[in-house]
Amino acid sequence: MATHKILLLPGDGIGPEVAQEVSKVLAWFTRAGIAQFETETDLVGGAAIDAHGVPLSEAAMDRAKAADAVLFGAVGGPKWAGVSYAKRPEAGLLRLRKDLGLFANLRPAICYPALAEASALKRELVEGLDIVIVRELTGGVYFGEPKEIVTLEDGQKRAVDTQVYTTGEIERIAAVAFDLARKRRNKVASAEKHNVMKTGVLWKETVTKLHAEQYSDVGLEHVLADNCAMQLVRNPKQYDVLVTDNLFGDILSDVAAMLTGSLGMLPSASLGAVENGTRRALYEPVHGSAPDIAGQNLANPIAMIGSLAMALRYSFGLLEAADQLEGAITRTLAAGTRTRDIAGPGTNAVGTTEMGDAIVREL
Amino acid sequence: MATHKILLLPGDGIGPEVAQEVSKVLAWFTRAGIAQFETETDLVGGAAIDAHGVPLSEAAMDRAKAADAVLFGAVGGPKWAGVSYAKRPEAGLLRLRKDLGLFANLRPAICYPALAEASALKRELVEGLDIVIVRELTGGVYFGEPKEIVTLEDGQKRAVDTQVYTTGEIERIAAVAFDLARKRRNKVASAEKHNVMKTGVLWKETVTKLHAEQYSDVGLEHVLADNCAMQLVRNPKQYDVLVTDNLFGDILSDVAAMLTGSLGMLPSASLGAVENGTRRALYEPVHGSAPDIAGQNLANPIAMIGSLAMALRYSFGLLEAADQLEGAITRTLAAGTRTRDIAGPGTNAVGTTEMGDAIVREL
Ligand SMILES: CC(C)[C@H](C(=O)O)[C@@H](O)C(=O)O
Ligand SMILES: CC(C)[C@H](C(=O)O)[C@@H](O)C(=O)O
Repeated sequence: MATHKILLLPGDGIGPEVAQEVSKVLAWFTRAGIAQFETETDLVGGAAIDAHGVPLSEAAMDRAKAADAVLFGAVGGPKWAGVSYAKRPEAGLLRLRKDLGLFANLRPAICYPALAEASALKRELVEGLDIVIVRELTGGVYFGEPKEIVTLEDGQKRAVDTQVYTTGEIERIAAVAFDLARKRRNKVASAEKHNVMKTGVLWKETVTKLHAEQYSDVGLEHVLADNCAMQLVRNPKQYDVLVTDNLFGDILSDVAAMLTGSLGMLPSASLGAVENGTRRALYEPVHGSAPDIAGQNLANPIAMIGSLAMALRYSFGLLEAADQLEGAITRTLAAGTRTRDIAGPGTNAVGTTEMGDAIVREL
Repeated sequence: MATHKILLLPGDGIGPEVAQEVSKVLAWFTRAGIAQFETETDLVGGAAIDAHGVPLSEAAMDRAKAADAVLFGAVGGPKWAGVSYAKRPEAGLLRLRKDLGLFANLRPAICYPALAEASALKRELVEGLDIVIVRELTGGVYFGEPKEIVTLEDGQKRAVDTQVYTTGEIERIAAVAFDLARKRRNKVASAEKHNVMKTGVLWKETVTKLHAEQYSDVGLEHVLADNCAMQLVRNPKQYDVLVTDNLFGDILSDVAAMLTGSLGMLPSASLGAVENGTRRALYEPVHGSAPDIAGQNLANPIAMIGSLAMALRYSFGLLEAADQLEGAITRTLAAGTRTRDIAGPGTNAVGTTEMGDAIVREL
């Protein structure tokens, strides 16, 4: 049996708590003889700043490169608000994305039937919702240079960020979206602001060309990012796969996530290019570090456990195990087990560890 | 009685139809002896491209500069999809904003009680919603240079957009937000991405400093733009005034607008600096040119008529007339008059002209 190398980076806030539940699940798969894992754990974000003065040590970076998959919790919190820009907790995550070449961020927004009531939207608009946002993750305004603040002669400051995209960067993320759509409902919507941004012009042009040349069997629609945000609220089910740049993806995926009424439920995968049959990958919950509820056994571990399910499927080729784990999550929810964030009236809220235990029991 | 100089720029799509209804209202105020207007009309957007080859003629620009207020309809449509970037319809609007120095875009998102049911959100989340997005409108990624597409040696293209903000630009828009909050519920939320963008770092720092020095009586909260988009869906009533940059403002104001369930209802004001007691201003509906329903007497003219109400208030100092007009809109809605976009079950939809007539009758 192959051994899958995992680097677990719990991070800050509720990160360590939800990561703990993933460890339980990994242990179960090992005990059951279904798979074998070699798991290392390291620090990232504020925790790494406290220990090493940087949000990601070189040793942790090396371990990430050597791993078959990275499982990431969450980073940041008020404790590190005063840290310099270069060393802030988020820089650890951004470096992992960039240096591992994880250009494709898949963020499914799925509305679990048992939880449709928890959405801010009317039930009929979200029930059965199943869309995937494909967000470009290593380009755009997140990494373009110049990115600086300079002091002008009159004492004023001037800040600059630069959004850059090349044809190649756009092609490879669009290809991920088209390939994914073919396995789903065969529809891609591409969001940009070509009416204001040159990167939007190139984005639209490149997606259109790739579509005509290689994916004309897939439905393609172009939508302005502002209108897209609006459409996600008005009628989210019109979408299947939504591809967009790093910054728009950041915002649109949060809107989409919130529609499902259950931010604590949503996993994500960040994938690199396929090289020699394998690809670098990092899996993380969509939610953040939630410092306000950290350490109180209140966090919902499902997004993190669901991220492991994505790792089983995309990185380890353990499709059955992935189905098994997702089935266990669904059954646990169907049985009425709820953490506080998703507990409606008439359901009892359980803690983080109880939710993890319940899922392991269902396995 | 002073004569107020208005430049009416109906533009494309449904723009001319909704502008027509504004003309009716202006005529009524003149007939009633309440105010006197000198109204010129000119072309903008696709209509100007068709007539002059540019989306805004120099003559129209001069007229805009000479007017006390510009009333703008909407621009764009598939007909001009092939036009070059520099001459596309939107460039006419962007030039007006930039050359008139309209740095402050006020976008109220108000949920009319009669229409709460039309929202995608659950009624209790939006009923009574009353927030204003204060969007910076002449800076950021919309206007920063370089903004270009270059062809690289290997034939690939590389597109660049540049987001720039100076201390002064941030201060003046934040001051607008704080001043406005003092007349409302005294709360400002400032949205940026200081965890990823240097402009976000400067934004947060500048807003914090201005607040401490001149507005410490106003409540201030900083929120990451992605989280803000999420919060707008989760619980929009937590906000009063929301201040943000040009690009985030574009997206967040569309999300906020959609919450009210009535995009055809929302006006906006774009204001310049006060100079010699007056300020340049442009008023426009939040909705776009909606080419699919243009010319069919289907458009809702309320956003455009509401934009005139904002002009009466902010540019002409006609506060009573503004109240009167807004009252007439509210009564018309309360009486059950609805255009198609807001007609629920059991209400009869009227056309654009009928809605305009009904509002004039209520006056
Ligand atoms: C933590 C932060 C840097 C990050 C981002 O902006 O990409 C987060 O919001 C996300 O969406 O993963
Ligand atoms: C038409 C377009 C250029 C404009 C913008 O992006 O600002 C519009 O979306 C708006 O919000 O007024």
